[in-house]
Formats: sequence, structure tokens, C-alpha cells
Amino acid sequence: MSDQNGADALLKSLASAGVEVCFANPGTSELLLLDAMQKAPDFRAVLCLFEGVVSGAADGYGRMAEKPAATLLHLGSGFSNSMANLHNAKRARTPMVNLVGEHAYSHQTLNAPLASDIVGHVKLTSDWWRVAKSAESLAKDGVEAVAAANTGRLANVIVPADCAWDAAGVEAIPTEQAGLRLPPADSLSADIKALDAADGAQVVLFLGGNALQGEGLEAAGRIAALTGWRLISEVFPARQQRGQGRPVVPRLPYFGAQAEEMLAGTTHLVLCGAQAPVTFFAYPDAKGELTPDGCTVMTLARPGEDAATALVALADFLEAPAVSHPARELAPEPKSGPLTPKAMGAIMAAQAPDDLIVSDESITCGAFIGPYFDAAAPHDWMTLTGGAIGQGLPLATGAAVACPARKVLALQADGSAMYTHQALWTIAREALDVCVVILANHNYAILHHELGSLGVTEPDPRTSALLTLDNPRVDWVSLAKSLGVDGIACDTVEAFSAAFQGAMSRRGPFLIEACLRPV
Amino acid sequence: MSDQNGADALLKSLASAGVEVCFANPGTSELLLLDAMQKAPDFRAVLCLFEGVVSGAADGYGRMAEKPAATLLHLGSGFSNSMANLHNAKRARTPMVNLVGEHAYSHQTLNAPLASDIVGHVKLTSDWWRVAKSAESLAKDGVEAVAAANTGRLANVIVPADCAWDAAGVEAIPTEQAGLRLPPADSLSADIKALDAADGAQVVLFLGGNALQGEGLEAAGRIAALTGWRLISEVFPARQQRGQGRPVVPRLPYFGAQAEEMLAGTTHLVLCGAQAPVTFFAYPDAKGELTPDGCTVMTLARPGEDAATALVALADFLEAPAVSHPARELAPEPKSGPLTPKAMGAIMAAQAPDDLIVSDESITCGAFIGPYFDAAAPHDWMTLTGGAIGQGLPLATGAAVACPARKVLALQADGSAMYTHQALWTIAREALDVCVVILANHNYAILHHELGSLGVTEPDPRTSALLTLDNPRVDWVSLAKSLGVDGIACDTVEAFSAAFQGAMSRRGPFLIEACLRPV
Repeated sequence: MSDQNGADALLKSLASAGVEVCFANPGTSELLLLDAMQKAPDFRAVLCLFEGVVSGAADGYGRMAEKPAATLLHLGSGFSNSMANLHNAKRARTPMVNLVGEHAYSHQTLNAPLASDIVGHVKLTSDWWRVAKSAESLAKDGVEAVAAANTGRLANVIVPADCAWDAAGVEAIPTEQAGLRLPPADSLSADIKALDAADGAQVVLFLGGNALQGEGLEAAGRIAALTGWRLISEVFPARQQRGQGRPVVPRLPYFGAQAEEMLAGTTHLVLCGAQAPVTFFAYPDAKGELTPDGCTVMTLARPGEDAATALVALADFLEAPAVSHPARELAPEPKSGPLTPKAMGAIMAAQAPDDLIVSDESITCGAFIGPYFDAAAPHDWMTLTGGAIGQGLPLATGAAVACPARKVLALQADGSAMYTHQALWTIAREALDVCVVILANHNYAILHHELGSLGVTEPDPRTSALLTLDNPRVDWVSLAKSLGVDGIACDTVEAFSAAFQGAMSRRGPFLIEACLRPV
Repeated sequence: MSDQNGADALLKSLASAGVEVCFANPGTSELLLLDAMQKAPDFRAVLCLFEGVVSGAADGYGRMAEKPAATLLHLGSGFSNSMANLHNAKRARTPMVNLVGEHAYSHQTLNAPLASDIVGHVKLTSDWWRVAKSAESLAKDGVEAVAAANTGRLANVIVPADCAWDAAGVEAIPTEQAGLRLPPADSLSADIKALDAADGAQVVLFLGGNALQGEGLEAAGRIAALTGWRLISEVFPARQQRGQGRPVVPRLPYFGAQAEEMLAGTTHLVLCGAQAPVTFFAYPDAKGELTPDGCTVMTLARPGEDAATALVALADFLEAPAVSHPARELAPEPKSGPLTPKAMGAIMAAQAPDDLIVSDESITCGAFIGPYFDAAAPHDWMTLTGGAIGQGLPLATGAAVACPARKVLALQADGSAMYTHQALWTIAREALDVCVVILANHNYAILHHELGSLGVTEPDPRTSALLTLDNPRVDWVSLAKSLGVDGIACDTVEAFSAAFQGAMSRRGPFLIEACLRPV
């Protein structure tokens, strides 16, 4: 067709490759890409009011849909706003196709106000990018990006505006449909094969990536049941399938001392889609590597490789039979008393519906909540893979777009929520089935603790005040309502239980501010 | 002293160099830097709940105080969140010292979750950085950063955590005190000296940087009065001194056609701290360079050079006498009728107190408001230098910290306000004298216009819907109150006038949502 431009050809090609959604925050240089989305068949553009929401939502979508969403980002500055959550997505090995606007070629030499080194930005979060050379080549760049994203990468197409507006004859034929296809791990090594026969071996399968999902997780459970090997998850898994009928895989604790305690005595650590454990941060006179001294480390699958298939191969090699996991008893729901993270964990686990999706950015509170969910109905649990805060609400947004039939629960620390609460607006606009629970302790609670770990055990009160968020105290219910999401604040077990039950029993956006005692 | 660490030595050295303020968003790796701020004499740490607020506030501080503030940023991801406003600050030539935390050296090889290429980030917004090598060298890095910042740059000190916690014997002696000292321009060129004698020359002095302030602006006024040369400001000046008693310097319009019209007939364009004008974006079949064909371009001072001193030299060369600028009559204040940007401009200009500081991120509405202020009391006007939206509220925050005796007015478009409204919390916490006026047209209004410029004159309604922010409509008053700032919504001239008068007559934070008709 004669009036087709490069943007149209790109979007039609992406759509024909099975990309269905774009999380978008456009600027002038991206408007034709936005317009082209309306012409692509069955393509949905979701507007986000800040780029950190865009990238976090695409991450949540990709983790749940197991195929890439597109993003639309405005030049280098828009891209930089998205980078913290791109960092998390990169660590999660999330498939994603970023469409990044750029000035037209003729404009790039003029040092216009928004001029920037976009490739320089992109390189910081990805090893795959194309700078479109012409309108005719743009669609091909797009389908190549889909193929790259399918390997668990962030693929970036930088689109000079003239490549969007110039005429383009045809779309590109997709080389493959959108869908995650992690590269295979090496075949079983001899030392892993020999493990089962080792005398006195205390083996830990250290699980990450898709080892925590589907047949990978099932195979891990078969192996554990047969051999007695322990299953431990990396500290911040991208997506862990949990709950009744599935193996219990405790997460390695965030704090180094606790992690060392959990790993103590391990003689063989088998890495299954996770890297060997290290502490999040360094501390004076503390070691960063958490593998016990003398422990042998073996690799079943590297991070980003198909650990699930490798685990199935190992389970089959071991001739581990299928296992069923007996029902686990829920902790009793507290009926009264102070509202604490533990009380909330018991309540939420008991009331969680089947197939709940949890976006967990609960930071300090999370360690108290998470374990209750081992006895909850089957669910998916996503965490802060890269440690760049401000992920939780966007991630929930994208997961809800990917899985419209499932309830999404965002367990959200208040300090981190302040980064990207613009996501609430998109949740309201799209009427997504998301319940946000704000864990409002009005503190950077983790930092009070970390200050002690750094040797400042009696901090200056003015230092402590700089880690305390209660002056003024954010009113999360008003904030949510201002962005179109209804909500309620709870400071008792009774009120929280009733509010959570209500939110689980109906569809649509809702926010619960859990008013916790400041630490 | 024996218990002094690297962080202490750094902060004491910065304080002794005259750095007084740090806008901070700390993480674990920066906690000792935060703690050290309490020990540095007369040093003030201002907590911001998102790094985009940190960098924008430091920009506002630096533009007004004419000396660097420090920032505290958490690793690469924290830095990336600050980058959009660093981009603006770089274009504004704002002095700034960024303290960027980094993992301890021993931890940098472990690929911990937050591992990142911090220098790779820093390079995108600055050409000056130091990676601290030890606790002993850290303080010296800091005072060198102050000297670099003084030249109108963003100076970055990357602080591995062990350099903060290791013992450090002494502070560093500052080589120079904090204070902006722009590099000098070349001496007057022969062709500029000859301009006054050129037959039929239509000369424009195109002003940017410090040409729009103090004696530079005064000299420009002397020259214009003597020669009849026109004064025009770059589209987005960092800081323009305006109002009664000062020369009127109209800004070059954002839209290319209007800018070409303003510059038509110019035979000689003299660049005074500004680069030759170009359009913000490229458009099909439109040119990006706005200098009229055949116009001779001369450079009095390059961007970032001391244009003010160069203008004084030119005025003195021309023997231009001092001028006084006759009082200009305020436009009549409307008393009723629909609330429009023009009505608001007349009201605000009439009621503006002496020495008002305006942070202008009003986008489409601004062109209608700005001209009224030529007749307002003397004031400073700061604009979106780099075009990366989300600057306005943070900039106002920093300006208010720099100038506690002056009222600050943030003229803030709603779409852009959504980027960094976390600044409201800091404004409330610090009880800053900031009045925020949200220009709430519930649209990316500029993009509706730009879509037409790109040839989409009858957009798909779904495309238009993606540029429209009224589903849901953000309730700015509730949002402000949720973050501790009181406010009021106004949809009539009467209500706005009363609300603005009230806000100008008392000190402290306040927000006015101006409910404008959607475009």
C-alpha cells in the first residue's frame, strides 16, 4: 500500500510475529509509532505516565506471558527513566523489545536540546540493539529483535524519526514467533552424574530462572524426594511457582549471616539457572561469597540457560519417580491483635485465590510474609531481581495485562512504592485486576538495619531521620484515589482481614494501606 | 582523629570548600556518606524520595545559588533514575557535585544484583568524574570535583563503599571555594566590532547562559538601546532575569514556523552564550536550522562561556551608556470568565511578589503565560533546558533551598508533573516556600499538536486517546495532600485569583490545580 510508512511496517511485522502489547510513553519523535499501533492487527497500546512504569510493566508481562512485550520510549532521556527497571528485567532474563525513538538523521548533528547518545544508554542494560538505517529496513530490525528477545534478552530497536515517517513498501516476515526459548544448558556433566553416589555428600540444588517453574520445578521435587538433596532458591528469583502441590523451595535469605547459616554444611552446590550466591552488598570484615569453604560448586545450567530442561534430564538420569506433594496446612489466621507482617502473611496466604500472581517488593517485611504462602493455593511469586527499587507496582501492572483472568497481588514496601506509583494510574485506566498492599512502615527500614551492619550502631538522630519517611507521612489511600484507584487504610488485624477478603472476592483495582508500626 | 573514615574526610572537605547542601536518596552503599553529613560543619542533607528529584533539586539549587550542591545517588540504578534531570542540568551548565555510591572493590567482581557500569552511566551526562581509589584519596577527589563543578559542569565522584568506611587521616584542603566561574569567552572579534558600522545590518543578539542575568543582561540592554539591535533569548534559558527595570528579551518560540518568523530579516546573528537556533524536533520536509538563509553568524561567547563579561566588553567598546527601563504597564487582571492560560498569566504577573523565582515547566500553556511577566516585579525565570520532562517540581524544590527568603512559583504542566511529583513530599518536609500551579489540561497537549506537524491531521481516535490523560483524571489536590502539601482546585478566574493571591501572601508549600479545558 502506497501510504504505508516505516512505523506502520514495523508494527505490522511485530504483530505478525505475535507481539501483542506495547507499554508506551511517547514523545514527538515516537508519535508515528504510536499511530501505527492502531493499524496493526490485534495490537494493544497501554499508556504509562512515566518510563519506569513502562519498563517494569513490560518486565511483568514478559515474566508471565513468556514472550516479549514492546515498549515505546522517548529518546535517551526517556530511556534513562526506564533503566532501573530494565536493569531488573535484564537480571530476570525477561524477553522484551524496546522501541526507542531517536531524532531524524538530519537532526542528529544539530545538538538539539534532547540530543543524546542512545546506544550508550542501551549498552548499559543490553547487548542487543539495532539502529534503524532506513524505513525499508526498520521492519526487519523489528523481527530480528523479537528473535533476540526470545532468548531472554532485552532487544532494542532505535528508530530515527525519518525511518518512521518515510515510505516503506513491505513488512518483514517474522523468522520466529514471539516466545521465550532459553538457550540449552550443557549436557549433564560427569561430576553431577556421580553426585548421587558420593559418600556423605550434603547437596544443595540452587535454583534460579526457569528451574523454579513448571516441569523444572517438578523435576527438582522428584530429585529432592529421591536423594534427600535440599532445594534452595536464589535470593531474588524472577518467577517462582509456589503453593499447594508444588515443592517447597525456600529462598536464600538476603542477610549474609542468615544465608551462611542456611548453607552451612553443604558439600556440593549445584547451580541450576542461578549464579553462586553472594551478598547483596559488601560490609567491612565480612565476606561477599556465600558458598561454604570447601564446598564444591557444579553447574547444571548457567543463569539464562534452560535450567528446567536440564533438571528434567537430571531427574530422568537419576530415575527419580514422579512425586505428589501432600497438602500443607495453612497457618491459623489471626483474628485480632496488632497488624504485623506475620499476621498479614497468615491472612493473605489463607485467602489467596487459585493462580494468584504476587509481585513482591516488600523488602524488609517480605521475609516474614513469604513463608506462609507455601501452604497457599498454587500461585506465581515474582521478586526484585536486580535490586533496583520501584519495580513492584509496574511489574504487577504488566502481569495483569499478560494474565487478565488471574488476580494480581502487589506486596509493596512504601519507600519503594514512592518510585513508580504512577503505575496506579495505568492500573485504574486499564481496570486491571490488581490488589496493592502497601506495607507502610514509613521508613527505609532496611537501611536502619544496614547502618548497623556498617558499624554505625548508635547513629546520629539526624542520620536516622534521613531514613525515616513519616515527616510527612504519605497517605497512600488518598494518593491512590488521586490516581483513580480506590482503597482503604487498615491498622488492625480485623480491618486488614476484612479488606483483603473483600479485595480477593471482587475484580478490579484496589489498594490497602497496611499501617505498620514504624521500626 | 583516629576514628575518621573516608566518608567523614570527604564531607568535611566539601563543607570546607563551601558546599552546604546535599540532596540525597541513599542506599546501603551510601549510608556512611549520609552519616558523615551530620559531622560536617553547617552541612544540610535534604532527603528526596526519588533520584529524579535529587538531581532536579540540585539543578535548581545550582542555578540560583551559583555554586554546586552535592547529590547522593545509589549505584548505577540510582544514578540512572537521576539522569533525565542531569541531562537538563548539563544543558543548563549547572555546577553540581554528584556523590555516587559503588560496591566495595572486593565486591565489584561478584556480579551482585546491583552491579553496574557506573562510569558508563556517568559518561552520558558529564565529562568529569573520579573513581575514588582509597579512603585517603577520597577527600582530594571531592575538592577537585568542586573545582570542576565551578566551571559549570556536573562533577561526579564515584565512591566504592570501602573508600567510605576505611580510615582516612586528614581532610583535603580545598583548592577553591564553591562558586560558579564560567570560562571566559574569546576577546571581541573584529567582525563583531565592525557590526555597528555595517550598512543596513539587522542584528540580533541571541542570548543564553549568563547573558540573561545581572550585568550581562544590563549590558545587552545598553547595547540594544544604543544600536537598535534586537535581543532574543534561546528557547529554553537556564535562568533569565526578567520584570520591571530589566530589558525585555523575548524567547525564541518553540515552534519552528514561529521562530523563523521572529528571525526573518536578520542579517547578523550574534551568539551570546547560546548556540545557533535549531528546532527541538525534526519534521518531514521542514528544516532543522533556524538561522535565516544568508544570515551571518558570529560568536561573542559559546554556550558555557562567560557571556555576561563578553557583553559588558562589547557594550563598553560601543560606549553604550547606562539605560533605565521605563516602567511597563501590567495587563489588566481579568475578574471573571473562563480560566485560560492567558487569564492566569495576567493574574499571576500582577500578583507576583518582588524577587519571585519561577520554575517553568508549563509546556504548551507557557507561551501564553510568560509574556505577561515582562511587566511583573523583578524575578528569575528558569526553564526546561534539556527538554527532559519532570524537571519543574524538583527545580522549584532546589531553588527554594538555595533562596529561603524568596517565594518560588512552579508553573507545572500536569503530564510532566506526573514524572517527579515526589518532590512535593520534600517541599512539605522542608516547609519550603513553594507555590505549585498545576496547569491541568489532562492531556499531552503538545503531542496532539506535534501529531499534526508530522502529517497525521486526522488521527485515529485511539491514537488521540493515548495522548489524553483524563481517564482517569488525576486529582492533583488529593495527590498533593497525600504527600503533605495543602492545595485547592480552581476552575474559574475568580477562584484562581483568590487562591493565587492567598498563596503569594503567606509563606510555605501550597498547590493550586488550575482546571483548564482539555485541548
